[in-house]
Amino acid sequence: MPLSSFRQFEAALAHAADATEQTMDRLLPKGRVDETRVYEAMRYSSLGGGKRLRAFFVLAGATLFRVGQTPALRTASAIEFVHAYSLIHDDLPAMDDDDLRRGKPSCHKQFDEATAILAGDALQALAFEVLAHEDTHGDAAVRAHLVADLAKASGAHGMVGGQMLDLLAEEEGAEPMSSAAITRLQRLKTGALISFSCTAGAILGKATESMRTHLSAYAHDLGLAFQIVDDLLDVDSDDTIRLSESDARALGEAALRKLGFTSEESLIVATHLVDAAMWGFEFAGLPRILVIAERPELKKPRTPICIAKETPVSALVDGGNHLGYVAVS
Amino acid sequence: MPLSSFRQFEAALAHAADATEQTMDRLLPKGRVDETRVYEAMRYSSLGGGKRLRAFFVLAGATLFRVGQTPALRTASAIEFVHAYSLIHDDLPAMDDDDLRRGKPSCHKQFDEATAILAGDALQALAFEVLAHEDTHGDAAVRAHLVADLAKASGAHGMVGGQMLDLLAEEEGAEPMSSAAITRLQRLKTGALISFSCTAGAILGKATESMRTHLSAYAHDLGLAFQIVDDLLDVDSDDTIRLSESDARALGEAALRKLGFTSEESLIVATHLVDAAMWGFEFAGLPRILVIAERPELKKPRTPICIAKETPVSALVDGGNHLGYVAVS
Repeated sequence: MPLSSFRQFEAALAHAADATEQTMDRLLPKGRVDETRVYEAMRYSSLGGGKRLRAFFVLAGATLFRVGQTPALRTASAIEFVHAYSLIHDDLPAMDDDDLRRGKPSCHKQFDEATAILAGDALQALAFEVLAHEDTHGDAAVRAHLVADLAKASGAHGMVGGQMLDLLAEEEGAEPMSSAAITRLQRLKTGALISFSCTAGAILGKATESMRTHLSAYAHDLGLAFQIVDDLLDVDSDDTIRLSESDARALGEAALRKLGFTSEESLIVATHLVDAAMWGFEFAGLPRILVIAERPELKKPRTPICIAKETPVSALVDGGNHLGYVAVS
Repeated sequence: MPLSSFRQFEAALAHAADATEQTMDRLLPKGRVDETRVYEAMRYSSLGGGKRLRAFFVLAGATLFRVGQTPALRTASAIEFVHAYSLIHDDLPAMDDDDLRRGKPSCHKQFDEATAILAGDALQALAFEVLAHEDTHGDAAVRAHLVADLAKASGAHGMVGGQMLDLLAEEEGAEPMSSAAITRLQRLKTGALISFSCTAGAILGKATESMRTHLSAYAHDLGLAFQIVDDLLDVDSDDTIRLSESDARALGEAALRKLGFTSEESLIVATHLVDAAMWGFEFAGLPRILVIAERPELKKPRTPICIAKETPVSALVDGGNHLGYVAVS
């Protein structure tokens, strides 16, 4: 059953968040030992907040490939642990120096800096521990694949590399970044983990490499559109998705103008990218976005492509098989 | 060929350090991109220093179980990456606030705090990426096993838990720790990773669980003795092992007295533990230390056990097989 309305999508997202939160709660350390403070900091910063978009992508992908609940929820939890650790470290005084995170004191304000550093470190280790455990998948090759891809997405060639670029760009005297540099920053900082979230279900379901490549391309465009909107909103939450379609387009257009596109080009690209992101969240838009991903010239909008909303799914086949629609319920 | 002299041991250690360093160099990110600073910080803090004791344990264990060089060196590198990340984060102003590490400016002094946080984060991710890669072992079950055990050893129930205990113990107004609490701190902070280093070769060589348990027990005693000596020396290097046997015994005795043992008891235990550690580094002492590990009453030295240096290897069998001697050359 495709998710045909935003309300339906919201319900599915809330359901995914609840189920993931419960799994995370079970996986996080607890108990009364002398070092409980770091357990508490890990729980404080990873539970009870966020829309769990990354988890939703994992669960949606897992449904597409008929993966069971336990593997999907454990994988979703692992990614959310990495996301949580990156936010804890990002908020530190030496980094973004944020006192608030989702309306609550950030980890180092609620506890202290040392505890926040350690809680982040332990959350990263926990993510890999969860993925490598037999409960995540009976086939060790799948577990090792997940570990390798999460490590790549979150390390120096992924998320951490993007965070480094972000810091360098904010240094005094830093030259303004080119549009290509900004795109690369976002692709690393946010895109790599979102991309892994979108492909994790395919890995769990042992999908073909070609299928995973399609999903990865989809995820890259989704991540870019998402980040453009997110950056422009400049709000506290990292997972903001509540936007009217016209607002999102206007914001996307402004963002693209900043990236060096002309006004006319920006309107065209924003219409595609932001629209794609809006629909992408529903996952019913998956095939349509794949078309965009496969046409790199869209990012150089000298030759804009018009893609009708009703682009038939049959136009988007992988080895003769439809990618199909996803229902998360 | 057993390593029968300290000189021979030193040569083997140096060889292991060289080989591991070369592998680490190949595995670390390099290249000229905008985010090169984090690559440089990762390389600065993980290359060119340290005796690589953990790597040595991996290689010695791998030889024992006839594991090839590439799997052993990749696994050794992964553990050294985790060790390097923990030192970078430990040195941060919010943690131990150390300006020097092995005689060089610590990572946050050489670069800056934000870069040091990110370099540590990326080194942790790299460790898991290396272990999960096919080049580390052809059998994915072995790779997943290594990932799971390294994650446990370095996370909240291992190294990070120990670092948290250490911070809490140093807080103003903290109560003096009991001997049991100090032992637990060391076992988590240093012992867990050393223990994994000692068992990694057995995992790579698909040794029996009983064999791995023996090695793990050996590692626990080795780690404890090592930490006692290391803490008392209170020197800059974390890998100090240059001690005359008599000095080591004297230091060990003093440490044990601090832990609550009587002077007479301390002498007995220190003779065993420190002697074990000294010989343990040669790995020829492995069987002898296993005897200690299998007799927990040695830690309650009311009933001291005398173990002659010439304890026959045949007394230490595992399913009828000798553990044997190790030569690293």
